[in-house]
Amino acid sequence: MIRIGILGYGNLGRGVEAAIKKNPDTELVAVYTRRDPSALKLATEGVAVKSAAELESGSEPIDVLIICGGSATDLPKMTPKYAALYNVIDSFDTHANIPVHFANVDAASKQAGKVGVISCGWDPGMFSLSRVYASAVLPDGRDYTFWGKGVSQGHSDAVRRIDGVLDCRQYTIPVPEALDKVRSGSDPELSTREKHTRECFVVAEEGADLARIENEIKTMPNYFADYDTTVHFISADEMKANHSGLPHGGSVIYSGTTSDGTKHVIEYSLKLDSNPEFTGSVLVACARAAVRLNAEGVSGAKTILDLPPACLSAKSPEELRAHLL
Amino acid sequence: MIRIGILGYGNLGRGVEAAIKKNPDTELVAVYTRRDPSALKLATEGVAVKSAAELESGSEPIDVLIICGGSATDLPKMTPKYAALYNVIDSFDTHANIPVHFANVDAASKQAGKVGVISCGWDPGMFSLSRVYASAVLPDGRDYTFWGKGVSQGHSDAVRRIDGVLDCRQYTIPVPEALDKVRSGSDPELSTREKHTRECFVVAEEGADLARIENEIKTMPNYFADYDTTVHFISADEMKANHSGLPHGGSVIYSGTTSDGTKHVIEYSLKLDSNPEFTGSVLVACARAAVRLNAEGVSGAKTILDLPPACLSAKSPEELRAHLL
Repeated sequence: MIRIGILGYGNLGRGVEAAIKKNPDTELVAVYTRRDPSALKLATEGVAVKSAAELESGSEPIDVLIICGGSATDLPKMTPKYAALYNVIDSFDTHANIPVHFANVDAASKQAGKVGVISCGWDPGMFSLSRVYASAVLPDGRDYTFWGKGVSQGHSDAVRRIDGVLDCRQYTIPVPEALDKVRSGSDPELSTREKHTRECFVVAEEGADLARIENEIKTMPNYFADYDTTVHFISADEMKANHSGLPHGGSVIYSGTTSDGTKHVIEYSLKLDSNPEFTGSVLVACARAAVRLNAEGVSGAKTILDLPPACLSAKSPEELRAHLL
Repeated sequence: MIRIGILGYGNLGRGVEAAIKKNPDTELVAVYTRRDPSALKLATEGVAVKSAAELESGSEPIDVLIICGGSATDLPKMTPKYAALYNVIDSFDTHANIPVHFANVDAASKQAGKVGVISCGWDPGMFSLSRVYASAVLPDGRDYTFWGKGVSQGHSDAVRRIDGVLDCRQYTIPVPEALDKVRSGSDPELSTREKHTRECFVVAEEGADLARIENEIKTMPNYFADYDTTVHFISADEMKANHSGLPHGGSVIYSGTTSDGTKHVIEYSLKLDSNPEFTGSVLVACARAAVRLNAEGVSGAKTILDLPPACLSAKSPEELRAHLL
């Protein structure tokens, strides 16, 4: 039994909790929180809720800690801190800062003789695997990543910060013509605007200036200005009825050449009803790998690119060879 | 520079040769053949053609030998034989016999202190990776594998053995309705006939009884009897003009559940202009991994499921983390 602790009980923490129920070789031992533990009600009966402070002894009865925090401010501090005490897993997804985060976790994990797997999820994560395998097999080629259709929580949050906005759900949508071009193997050059559109469902305060809100969204730098964006104003009831899920997905498409005129197109795509439950499921598979590698004497920071695929599976190498190879 | 030897110069051997040209960290040192070496003309200038017998000294100047033989009779003998002397790679694809083949190669490789990677290609190979990753992340789910549209060399050969047949190209084609059902996540039960159809382009001897040939094809056990098969008789010129390539491909589709009513669909698909060139490209990436692992002191049989993904890539772990993760 792999004994797992979860740190942080937001959407992702609950996604990890759901995933543990689907993996009979794993057990949720405790959820750790920086809030008041007595205020937390878990979906799983009989699991302890503890203060995050308890982790600092380094003697909590867990084989691995899955850290469910935000990439902007939580994980850069939390992952190295707990990597010095436990095997840890995170879903750090600020691509540009991965090298620094990796170095910090590596130093802490190595000193502790533990394994820290960073940036697990689907991008970075499963999509990264697709990019690496495809480019390793077909070095003369290029990759395209499309996200959606799905809810971007970062973009939804950005709209919620606009004056007069009560709630927002932002969908990122790949442009079908761009997908078709890439799938044909024609290696098109595509601008940001040509790859994705954005669609916002917004609940505004009564009497708010809707034209101003729509304009503020569409001209917001980085988030929306480079995209064709559609804005729909809806009621709070409509939001609850039609937009309460967190679906997501996307595709990594790679086209490569092996000789004159000989093309190959590789596509990996995901259609996810729940982004946090799928991401949580990847975290649990990586937690299994971390515990196994650490038991073999491995230490230091890893990413999913360093983990032998068989290590992620509950099935034995013999079963995998006989039935899935 | 990774020094590679190729044993066997059929379609697959030539595919490996093409792949080596696309991988600047690899070098083709020699092609070994069981035929008369002087009868072989390579596509690459300046590469030695040698008798397979030369390999038996164990002192050929290669880091890894890629064995390009058939799974029925060649590889079960050849891979263990050469695994006792060199790092070796093969594309053994008789799924049912993989455990025995693995054990034979493992014994030979371990004794020699070498690495032998078996069953590399796309199925087994890249498709196996998709099945393993998907089931590791979503253990409550199931996979479906579809092949095609593409040329099945085994089925083409089977038709060629029929009396009165001069040539045949057999295409395996997934049934679109079956693909749609699986992609919807509805977990259908599908019979062999419901998943694929088969289409044969046949060049017959002049005056041959076409009705008899068509009937022999359609009723052939294992190969065609369980499928809806279409047979077209064409001229040798038409065969050459329209069916000289060896395209293939297919999809692994996995649907899994993380909580009540929460579904996820993962699809990995390949569209390959040349089956042997793509398979050869996978073999070369696995050869790189074998040489690296052996340099770290690893020995024994491996499959692609045991190889850390980063090991297959010519890029450094730092480059992969910075640009592809």
